[in-house]
Amino acid sequence: MKRIGVFTSGGDAPGMNAAIRAVVRAGIFYNKEIIGIYRGYEGMIEGDFVPMEVRSVSNILQRGGTILKSARSKEFLTAEGRTKAYEQLKKHNIDGLICIGGDGSFTGLHNLYKEHNIPCVCIPGTIDNDIPGTDYTIGYDTATNTAVNAIDKIRDTALSHNRLFFIEVMGRDSGYIAINSGIAGGAVAVIIPEEETSIDELIEKLNATGTQNKTSSLVIVAEGGKSGSAMEIAQRVKEKFSYFDTKVTILGHLQRGGTPTYFDRVLASKMGVAAIEGLDAGQTDVMVGIVHQQVIFNKFEEIMSQPKDIRKDDLRIAKILSI
Amino acid sequence: MKRIGVFTSGGDAPGMNAAIRAVVRAGIFYNKEIIGIYRGYEGMIEGDFVPMEVRSVSNILQRGGTILKSARSKEFLTAEGRTKAYEQLKKHNIDGLICIGGDGSFTGLHNLYKEHNIPCVCIPGTIDNDIPGTDYTIGYDTATNTAVNAIDKIRDTALSHNRLFFIEVMGRDSGYIAINSGIAGGAVAVIIPEEETSIDELIEKLNATGTQNKTSSLVIVAEGGKSGSAMEIAQRVKEKFSYFDTKVTILGHLQRGGTPTYFDRVLASKMGVAAIEGLDAGQTDVMVGIVHQQVIFNKFEEIMSQPKDIRKDDLRIAKILSI
Amino acid sequence: MKRIGVFTSGGDAPGMNAAIRAVVRAGIFYNKEIIGIYRGYEGMIEGDFVPMEVRSVSNILQRGGTILKSARSKEFLTAEGRTKAYEQLKKHNIDGLICIGGDGSFTGLHNLYKEHNIPCVCIPGTIDNDIPGTDYTIGYDTATNTAVNAIDKIRDTALSHNRLFFIEVMGRDSGYIAINSGIAGGAVAVIIPEEETSIDELIEKLNATGTQNKTSSLVIVAEGGKSGSAMEIAQRVKEKFSYFDTKVTILGHLQRGGTPTYFDRVLASKMGVAAIEGLDAGQTDVMVGIVHQQVIFNKFEEIMSQPKDIRKDDLRIAKILSI
Amino acid sequence: MKRIGVFTSGGDAPGMNAAIRAVVRAGIFYNKEIIGIYRGYEGMIEGDFVPMEVRSVSNILQRGGTILKSARSKEFLTAEGRTKAYEQLKKHNIDGLICIGGDGSFTGLHNLYKEHNIPCVCIPGTIDNDIPGTDYTIGYDTATNTAVNAIDKIRDTALSHNRLFFIEVMGRDSGYIAINSGIAGGAVAVIIPEEETSIDELIEKLNATGTQNKTSSLVIVAEGGKSGSAMEIAQRVKEKFSYFDTKVTILGHLQRGGTPTYFDRVLASKMGVAAIEGLDAGQTDVMVGIVHQQVIFNKFEEIMSQPKDIRKDDLRIAKILSI
Repeated sequence: MKRIGVFTSGGDAPGMNAAIRAVVRAGIFYNKEIIGIYRGYEGMIEGDFVPMEVRSVSNILQRGGTILKSARSKEFLTAEGRTKAYEQLKKHNIDGLICIGGDGSFTGLHNLYKEHNIPCVCIPGTIDNDIPGTDYTIGYDTATNTAVNAIDKIRDTALSHNRLFFIEVMGRDSGYIAINSGIAGGAVAVIIPEEETSIDELIEKLNATGTQNKTSSLVIVAEGGKSGSAMEIAQRVKEKFSYFDTKVTILGHLQRGGTPTYFDRVLASKMGVAAIEGLDAGQTDVMVGIVHQQVIFNKFEEIMSQPKDIRKDDLRIAKILSI
Repeated sequence: MKRIGVFTSGGDAPGMNAAIRAVVRAGIFYNKEIIGIYRGYEGMIEGDFVPMEVRSVSNILQRGGTILKSARSKEFLTAEGRTKAYEQLKKHNIDGLICIGGDGSFTGLHNLYKEHNIPCVCIPGTIDNDIPGTDYTIGYDTATNTAVNAIDKIRDTALSHNRLFFIEVMGRDSGYIAINSGIAGGAVAVIIPEEETSIDELIEKLNATGTQNKTSSLVIVAEGGKSGSAMEIAQRVKEKFSYFDTKVTILGHLQRGGTPTYFDRVLASKMGVAAIEGLDAGQTDVMVGIVHQQVIFNKFEEIMSQPKDIRKDDLRIAKILSI
Repeated sequence: MKRIGVFTSGGDAPGMNAAIRAVVRAGIFYNKEIIGIYRGYEGMIEGDFVPMEVRSVSNILQRGGTILKSARSKEFLTAEGRTKAYEQLKKHNIDGLICIGGDGSFTGLHNLYKEHNIPCVCIPGTIDNDIPGTDYTIGYDTATNTAVNAIDKIRDTALSHNRLFFIEVMGRDSGYIAINSGIAGGAVAVIIPEEETSIDELIEKLNATGTQNKTSSLVIVAEGGKSGSAMEIAQRVKEKFSYFDTKVTILGHLQRGGTPTYFDRVLASKMGVAAIEGLDAGQTDVMVGIVHQQVIFNKFEEIMSQPKDIRKDDLRIAKILSI
Repeated sequence: MKRIGVFTSGGDAPGMNAAIRAVVRAGIFYNKEIIGIYRGYEGMIEGDFVPMEVRSVSNILQRGGTILKSARSKEFLTAEGRTKAYEQLKKHNIDGLICIGGDGSFTGLHNLYKEHNIPCVCIPGTIDNDIPGTDYTIGYDTATNTAVNAIDKIRDTALSHNRLFFIEVMGRDSGYIAINSGIAGGAVAVIIPEEETSIDELIEKLNATGTQNKTSSLVIVAEGGKSGSAMEIAQRVKEKFSYFDTKVTILGHLQRGGTPTYFDRVLASKMGVAAIEGLDAGQTDVMVGIVHQQVIFNKFEEIMSQPKDIRKDDLRIAKILSI
């Protein structure tokens, strides 16, 4: 293998740039040529390629976002689109691919591999930490810290008044950010997509803590759960419960950006090196994972069939600590 | 004057604790007793008072919120409420008051002064910077930095995709946070309450910058302006302008909290000392201001009749730089 | 077991307050009385005890340092001192102990246990991550992020000039902070206590990267290594290598403080709950560890006999990425 | 005037990139060509020039350091060096210059102007805030916040033990950072270059606060003062005063880097626009200043003859609050 293409795909996550840098530098270390592919599968179809040197990735380790940009491509969902992409790769003599992205992106690459047999390795980059086969995904540590820093600020103002805040964090199908920012933020309750929480239970909980004369409370809500959005839940609580002055904050896209933490940079660096080494050693159709500090290569099909369970014990801890 | 009451009132702002600390420490320096009044006028009416020592304000300089808590009191809006409050002050031998808050709080104190003749000095604490008679209010510097840090994170993700973000910042009647976070955040447009911006103008602006091949754009919107909320404006732009993927983030209450900047701590410290020195020197019915590094004492009535104009030149700068 | 004493001992670490809070709240959840012991073994000998309620730990989750304070006690190193301490515990009906600290603190508690048979559980709190029996210690994640944020700032100025910076980080016997902040900070070389690095090797490395026309380079040095301090190494490099303008920054104690990251807060919260649950279930003379997300209880003697190895593969990654 | 050269010179300061961006964008707004000159006077002599577009300054507003890099040039100190530089400017048809830097850089430009009559405007960029003719210099706000954030972290650890910290901040000839970070950091004493502080006075101060049972104290020392370095002062205090465990932290170069605050970005943006408008309106041999929110143009010679006094009242406030 001589020329390896690298691209980012799907929602961006802090640490993607550190992963790109690691792929480029490890690639050069192992005498590969590295080609950057802009805007994910869209750029692959269009042949939007650029050779990458050490210089191309200088001073990006600490930056949020992705210098290769990301996009969603409808065309790549079709076999025709994938054939076009493959022809571009062949034309540019690219004989291996490294994709940094989430599960949607992996499915696309898996299809490309099945149809055109190009060696490929994925690196899990998503703030949601919802991908099996790895303890952590790139961006999750940073996003959770961003959420917790925002919660800290909101707590300052909640404590100064008699306020109940509903704070919506990201994690459409995954309660990781919600539970961990809930524990770290001292929330009275955490509402996650994996479980349904009834308004009555929630109000009972709020009443229980209200009697302990707290002057404020924070409830963390993961977006997109069955229990409704933070706004809807707040509305229903407000109707039944007038003691507190109820407010809602939706943290939104600020959770996606920002300087990655050391953890995400190191994780991304290790995964980037592992992707190059794996590809070189003949791994293909796999996702790099780090499980208890060890690099592993997961077959795509196994990952895609597995759900990533929320750690049940974390919920238990959140409940004990919210007395 | 021997016993001075201090309280925080209205919306909290980062730096209020630094102001409380300065009032307490400067009070002790000048041999006054300082009494903390909890929950603003509500606590004043209820006699929720506590003597304050150096120890009471230790390790609070760097904390957001207010250790004295804040509240809005309907009762204090009535002459009867104010008489109750005054009786509590007399009962506890409090012969001077220092209020840290916004213009609503000042009006209350002004009425108390007119009716009961108790010496009083106000310290402007509000993130909106909408109070005349001082260059800066406590909390504005921190809140603007908080907004800009959030904008920086959002820019990371906007740049990674092809996105147009509408970011709503605080400042119901005042465009200070919006304009300054717009200049500092590199916004393509800033929408403030003091001016009406038409959607057509905005779209023209976006088109002009779009032709320069930017991959993303940020528009900063102050909450509560005539032009509508960020959500409404985004909706109208979306209808006419499909090039960008449009997103909205409402920064909300996280702008009120957080560790105050050095600027807000120093401003609060100076104003706290000035309030004690002013009260001691016979100032009453005034607000402390700092204008071009000089302490001044503004008569309430003068301040309340003045509007605080947005600095026109700042808008001009924002426009030049958003080409 | 009804009354449990909790204290912090040795060097403070960010997240110790979150651990204290978890011990208090989990203790109350399980119907224990929790007694705070001030200033570690010093306060234990003096009987400096205070009952702790939910209120005692309110709003401390996000604060660096330790509200129970820490100290080193010479007297506790003697059997007489420990007997005095034990008598204070008996007098106050304390029938179990939870210690948050490093290995020196654990040895003291182990001795107390052997002599007086009081049930005790330790929680590993130290920024150095140098304790076996757990993947992470409380404070390490925060300290490494603090180091990396400082490195990021120094890189800005290094890149603007033609500079070689030697940055000394904490970790007297352990290269964890150095290696991980080196990978995350993009260092050209990392010098750790576990390995000796010759100046000639270092200069060769710098020459190799210099030829790639980098305009700046960062070398991370763990304090207290065999290779000398950052200052000494910089001096020797300077003598032989004049191309760069050489500077030294010693990060020092700022690495010990600051708001803990979400990771340290969650780790501390889990360990605090586990310590209460362990003590209640009859665990004694053990240290709580979390290994691959599972709580384990390590016997003191086993931990103390084990070295904690640096992860060899991390060094390899650091070298590959510093081409 | 059609082609304007812009460069950064002397020590870098956060916000310099925002100033470069503003010069480029305002230049394009006013139909000028802007030429970036790399590495200050060194690059000017070597003709290291690059045309700058909107794209050249994209996504730099929030970055520390300077994309144009900075250097000190010995050759430019000579008339021959300046003649070489002027010839390069003429060769590239550069008919105006904007320099972002400190007073040393301004002197060089003043000499170039006197000898070769090239129109030039300076923008004050230095963290020390030691330049007359403007309320603030670019970088000072950020550097002071960086110092205060470090002090906050050190306070956490100081409070957890019984510690006296001496913290050295930048400001070789100017006590601005020291005084303001001292007020904002709650220091017990501040030692500045403009005043001599005797060790006896300092110990008296420490004794006075010690009797109030503080468990820790911070002393801020500006580097390079007559009273000695933080290390020397700490040594002398230690000899006479054993109550506290004495520690020293030298903040060093991390104060020069980091993301600029909103204040520095807005200041830099305004000064960048003003420099272009001033040059276009015929201003030359001047430094842009902003005094009480108004742009002014100061003649070089006037600035260079003036000292910038420390604000005496700030020292008074620091003393009142350190009781």
